[in-house]
Amino acid sequence: MTVEVISVGTELLLGNIVNTNTQYLAEKCAGLGLTMYYQSVVGDNEERMTASFRQAFERSDVVILTGGLGPTEDDLTKEVCAKVLGLPLVLHERSRQRIADYFVRTSRKNITENNWKQAMIPEGAIVLDNDNGTAPGLIVEADNLSVILLPGPPNELKPLFEGKVVPYLKKRSPFTICSAMVKLIGVGESRAETMIKDMIDGQTNPTIATYAKTGECDIRVTARAANEAEAMELINPAVEELFKRFGDNIYTTHEEETLEQTVVRLLKEKGLTVTTAESCTGGLVAARLINVSGASDVIKSGFITYCDETKHSILGVPTELLESYSAVSEQVAEAMALGGAKAAGADACLSVTGIAGPDGGTEEKPVGLVYVGCHFGEKTVVREFRMRGNREKIREQAVVQALDLLRRRLITDMGE
Amino acid sequence: MTVEVISVGTELLLGNIVNTNTQYLAEKCAGLGLTMYYQSVVGDNEERMTASFRQAFERSDVVILTGGLGPTEDDLTKEVCAKVLGLPLVLHERSRQRIADYFVRTSRKNITENNWKQAMIPEGAIVLDNDNGTAPGLIVEADNLSVILLPGPPNELKPLFEGKVVPYLKKRSPFTICSAMVKLIGVGESRAETMIKDMIDGQTNPTIATYAKTGECDIRVTARAANEAEAMELINPAVEELFKRFGDNIYTTHEEETLEQTVVRLLKEKGLTVTTAESCTGGLVAARLINVSGASDVIKSGFITYCDETKHSILGVPTELLESYSAVSEQVAEAMALGGAKAAGADACLSVTGIAGPDGGTEEKPVGLVYVGCHFGEKTVVREFRMRGNREKIREQAVVQALDLLRRRLITDMGE
Repeated sequence: MTVEVISVGTELLLGNIVNTNTQYLAEKCAGLGLTMYYQSVVGDNEERMTASFRQAFERSDVVILTGGLGPTEDDLTKEVCAKVLGLPLVLHERSRQRIADYFVRTSRKNITENNWKQAMIPEGAIVLDNDNGTAPGLIVEADNLSVILLPGPPNELKPLFEGKVVPYLKKRSPFTICSAMVKLIGVGESRAETMIKDMIDGQTNPTIATYAKTGECDIRVTARAANEAEAMELINPAVEELFKRFGDNIYTTHEEETLEQTVVRLLKEKGLTVTTAESCTGGLVAARLINVSGASDVIKSGFITYCDETKHSILGVPTELLESYSAVSEQVAEAMALGGAKAAGADACLSVTGIAGPDGGTEEKPVGLVYVGCHFGEKTVVREFRMRGNREKIREQAVVQALDLLRRRLITDMGE
Repeated sequence: MTVEVISVGTELLLGNIVNTNTQYLAEKCAGLGLTMYYQSVVGDNEERMTASFRQAFERSDVVILTGGLGPTEDDLTKEVCAKVLGLPLVLHERSRQRIADYFVRTSRKNITENNWKQAMIPEGAIVLDNDNGTAPGLIVEADNLSVILLPGPPNELKPLFEGKVVPYLKKRSPFTICSAMVKLIGVGESRAETMIKDMIDGQTNPTIATYAKTGECDIRVTARAANEAEAMELINPAVEELFKRFGDNIYTTHEEETLEQTVVRLLKEKGLTVTTAESCTGGLVAARLINVSGASDVIKSGFITYCDETKHSILGVPTELLESYSAVSEQVAEAMALGGAKAAGADACLSVTGIAGPDGGTEEKPVGLVYVGCHFGEKTVVREFRMRGNREKIREQAVVQALDLLRRRLITDMGE
């Protein structure tokens, strides 16, 4: 079954926003086993929309149209779609009522006349109630074609797709598609691919695909079968095999769990607290932990020490160490982690010191050299990294490595 | 002059990466005064590429093709483009030499046979030397059509576009297009638009467009003229008028300068240092300042205090204040800023305390309530905000407001 995405919106053509919706939809569709050959963007213009829609309706089985469902005159997606399919627009009473309720709920007084336009639907369309806005999602079926219309704002599009379109597409598909996610850290995408080349090559059911993120790699296992139980029978052995090959490098198999959520969860389970002592990452390690809702149980403080003086005064790093080895060294990373834990009275402390560039590198200590330390229990462990990329990328990778170092210690040595 | 972008790459169709290249190109083309009607993505497939390219070559004056210029068999962009235009591929000697040099420079030994494929060009093409990779950019001219081929990696695409394609497009254009950027903070996009509605509506030269960012708003003034001097004569009065209307809300007119760069620059100019005392932002304020290369002159430390206990022990916030007013209060924000400056011995201190959600809100203190404090000189100023959005958005806005509060104090009261 082939699918394509057309995003409607002049703001995309002007480069005002990045098209993250299409990436989201593409990844989800791939996970459902659908084949995507085309993605496109067209402006709010009837003639060009008509041409684009017609072309897509002819060449794909499923066409997802996003954006252009708002109440203004510029919003033409539904109107053009109905015209191309030869369907009249009719009032959908439930949607009209929901729009009225929405305005009450969000304490807005003035429903202008054009808002009711959002309750008009192509005759016969399946209406997907939108809990986060006034434009409902729609599915219009014509012969073997399904056209799916979704509002542009990601906080409306994603819940509608996840909650209503995915079940629809699964039902439309002649088979059930299930997938499992295995999230890795400490193994780059290309090494991961090499390590499972035999599982990827020539395999069609389940399929295995890798997705690179900064410092991380996700592996998705997708299977097609008559029902969910049979699909899982195909998936489970592959996931087990991935555990055999990657072991502790796998930090979660929960699709939505991030590395920082894993770390916060592990700390909570063990009733431990952590603090941070950051130099080049400048607070990013703490910020990422604190972005987990409820992190206050496990992280109560953090220190940013961006010069020798504050590494000494705040963390108690001995001046001799800073002078002999310089701030970017294994010894200082170790002393920062130990000093941070003491200063905060925390069970664990992550430290980061490195050269994020673009300036400050030398032949001996080049840009990208980063030391990550973790004090926990009686032991402080330090890892050295040589990272690539610009200042931002280097700092991001350092954050990931710091969080991962703590994760590994929490699942293995328990601080002994 | 119309332009369209076709991105080639299966990784986009699978949703492995977000199409940031197209957003970048769209924004740049809009800045050049070009009209973009279409953007699309097609996979590494000869048949579908041929159809997409042919359609684009027919309907647009300039077609930008990105990706698919690599050395592998899957990389077909150049081959298909040449075929559609009826041009043979010929060896380009300078490019061949540059590829050989590149391998020497990056200490790679094995130039495999397929790498030389990257030195083949459509006959007559303009070659754009690529300093960051082995695939040169190319411009192929046919009648009134210009096809521009750029490598997919953003660190190769952007310098090539900026350095070589922009001058080319400016020359191809019948007039010179210049633009100026005015960056605002403290005025939302819709209010900004309303305030300059008369300058936007019906104006065609210069045109004025607003771009919203989290907590910020950019305004671009673009003019068309016979030469740069004449274009600037159209732009300058508009920029002056924007200064009259927005005053201190304008933090920079440098296209590439970010808010944190402005703040670091102002601190450097005045020889001042800053520290941070963060609760809900958890280190993000410091992290953003430290992302400016050379920030070490002005920020040497930062404190993250994510519970009452550490606000007291690290920043010296009186326990009575925390008990009487709770941590999210004007009084505590003030005490945090003062305490942070003292603890660090810094000239200024930014403090942030708020409820980022999704939990922890009450009727009196709802999710989104944030206090931002700034101690500087003898005075501590606190601002109250009621922010909307999810946890991440609320924290982002809080960071922007904190940086802006310091900026305003640095340009006005000089801490008195």
